[in-house]
Amino acid sequence: MNVDGTHYRTIWLKEGDERTVQIIDQRNLPHEFIIEDLKTTKDVARAIKEMRVRGAGLIGATAAYGMYLAALESREELRWLIKQKDSAVPKEQFDSYCSSEFDIMMKNAGDVLIRTRPTAVNLEWAVNRQIEAMKGTGYDSKISTALKTAIEIADEDAEYCRSIGEHGVNLLEDISNRKGGKPVNILTHCNAGWLAFVDYGSATSPIYAAHNQGIDVHVWVDETRPSNQGARLTAWELGQHGVPHTVIADNAGGHLMQHEEVDIMIVGSDRTTYTGDVCNKIGTYLKAVAAKDNNIPFYVALPSSTIDWKMRDGVKEIPIEERGGEEVKYIQGLHDGNIKQVLLTPETSSVTNYSFDVTPSRLVTGIITERGICEASEDGILSMYPERRK
Amino acid sequence: MNVDGTHYRTIWLKEGDERTVQIIDQRNLPHEFIIEDLKTTKDVARAIKEMRVRGAGLIGATAAYGMYLAALESREELRWLIKQKDSAVPKEQFDSYCSSEFDIMMKNAGDVLIRTRPTAVNLEWAVNRQIEAMKGTGYDSKISTALKTAIEIADEDAEYCRSIGEHGVNLLEDISNRKGGKPVNILTHCNAGWLAFVDYGSATSPIYAAHNQGIDVHVWVDETRPSNQGARLTAWELGQHGVPHTVIADNAGGHLMQHEEVDIMIVGSDRTTYTGDVCNKIGTYLKAVAAKDNNIPFYVALPSSTIDWKMRDGVKEIPIEERGGEEVKYIQGLHDGNIKQVLLTPETSSVTNYSFDVTPSRLVTGIITERGICEASEDGILSMYPERRK
Repeated sequence: MNVDGTHYRTIWLKEGDERTVQIIDQRNLPHEFIIEDLKTTKDVARAIKEMRVRGAGLIGATAAYGMYLAALESREELRWLIKQKDSAVPKEQFDSYCSSEFDIMMKNAGDVLIRTRPTAVNLEWAVNRQIEAMKGTGYDSKISTALKTAIEIADEDAEYCRSIGEHGVNLLEDISNRKGGKPVNILTHCNAGWLAFVDYGSATSPIYAAHNQGIDVHVWVDETRPSNQGARLTAWELGQHGVPHTVIADNAGGHLMQHEEVDIMIVGSDRTTYTGDVCNKIGTYLKAVAAKDNNIPFYVALPSSTIDWKMRDGVKEIPIEERGGEEVKYIQGLHDGNIKQVLLTPETSSVTNYSFDVTPSRLVTGIITERGICEASEDGILSMYPERRK
Repeated sequence: MNVDGTHYRTIWLKEGDERTVQIIDQRNLPHEFIIEDLKTTKDVARAIKEMRVRGAGLIGATAAYGMYLAALESREELRWLIKQKDSAVPKEQFDSYCSSEFDIMMKNAGDVLIRTRPTAVNLEWAVNRQIEAMKGTGYDSKISTALKTAIEIADEDAEYCRSIGEHGVNLLEDISNRKGGKPVNILTHCNAGWLAFVDYGSATSPIYAAHNQGIDVHVWVDETRPSNQGARLTAWELGQHGVPHTVIADNAGGHLMQHEEVDIMIVGSDRTTYTGDVCNKIGTYLKAVAAKDNNIPFYVALPSSTIDWKMRDGVKEIPIEERGGEEVKYIQGLHDGNIKQVLLTPETSSVTNYSFDVTPSRLVTGIITERGICEASEDGILSMYPERRK
């Protein structure tokens, strides 16, 4: 989407330098727009861990590019190894020796990347897709395969998100018609915007599509403590695209629902069970249960890459990341033109920082996928992905 | 309660100076403990408006002292007026003239105080109680009556809160027994602590009582954005009293409930309808609906001064204060030893800041009053206050 009128994605290969991946360091938004170079797998792991990049789709795409950088590093390492023990490997076994050593190295690199964030399923999915893709190729073409797969994963993510917008916009159009063209008030939590994916976003994609079609929309943006992805990222990207929005404290959504100020909720998902339970940023469940209490439709927009086809019970099974307490104790913002951290609590108070929660499918009105809208249930999801029927 | 081992109330008459009221400026807590002098009605109005003092009970007590300062000011003004038009008032009508002029001045001062915060009912209640008390006395004793009434209101507030603790502690004791002495996990929202009243607090009073009796308690403290009364005030006062607690983002409570980490919720109330609807800090409703979804008891601790005997439907009728947007856009905290404000959102984003929401009685397990625990319903409340039956 656009930043100051120029089109950006959230991750790309640096122009003229196939060994460098570029990202927007999201920690400094909305106050500073900084593009960062990632040159090693370590850079990528740190960028994910420290939330320079975050969001279901973008974590997957970044891991995919990370695997490409890992492939470059593995080739260098193998070159060095082979130089050391040139004679040990017979010439005729050279290719298969390198290939199998390379695959082991890639597996290790993948493990490092997967460990950076435990909740989002896209991370593991992207890493495994890279490993599978490279397994099928000879040693010579592993690098090019890794690059091709990374680009494929990123393009597919953007394309899936675009399709989610195409399907989801109908929901907003219906509400707009029912309200006689008055603004459709959408409440969203966290950032499931283009910054969380490669482009368009999941929850925001129907909103951007509606706005572009001239449907009057207004977005209530949950601040989303502790990391404030709503106040920092969603507000920023909606503002850059010219979408009317209002930032609210996470506490305010229930009151707005009680007073008919919310027509629909749309959020994203970091992991979705095949039964329709949705794991998303901490606080999503509170909004879902309030939406139910007020008969407000609660939709989850998600590309199928977030579906975990092995998990049945979200509340019991999905691993919930616990992040550092400093995210609760301190907050960053702009003071006198500089980004500063301030302490919010008494120095000595304990804090806890669960990063996600699970909304049971019973509270979800529907799921907006790249293939269409379905019920949040095993049957509903399988109706969209019949190839997954056992 | 204690601050650094010394007992404080939240408001008191300055020692040796009957014309000065002292408060703790709560805006600087937990980082700075500052005692402030209030010398005029204007000082009092500003202190309430700017939330130097806040919380249902303390707002009432402060307004009561404000009316006392207004009485002192009115006497000065009348002295001046009388000097100007000495001859105009016949000697025999002097006392009744002054008395009626004084009552008008007090009514005006009361109006100014009531307008500072629209939601809390204690404010109006305390102002009217002062006006009624002074009406019944001759001109000479109005000042002493105002002072006596202010002290009465403050003492009564502290005593009511102490009684709430006596009744509420039984709930915590029962849970503790059921859990075989394992810590009782209480979730609270905002600050309904001693800082919100004159002493003890409402929601915290049963907790302090339990802690003092040796019952193992642990409090989950909701940060309570946007003004962070939980992270700043509740955490601080619990810490000063040695009560184990953990500060969490407002978003985290639902997840904790889903995972049996919350045994009971106790919150306060700024206005309670006679039917049991509870108006409390924004975000309370979200927790109540989640508590219901997880079968967790949701109690509201409140002195009867917060009951509005004229209001039936809380969601429809209670006026909800909308505060300045800067409370959402900016946050204050400690940086390099100084309290600083930092900007959280894009400079150009709109914000909205509703300060309270209403939890319908159907979500409230029970009300803990100074007279005992009752159902959150008209019948339940009247069983505690039979003198209110029409």
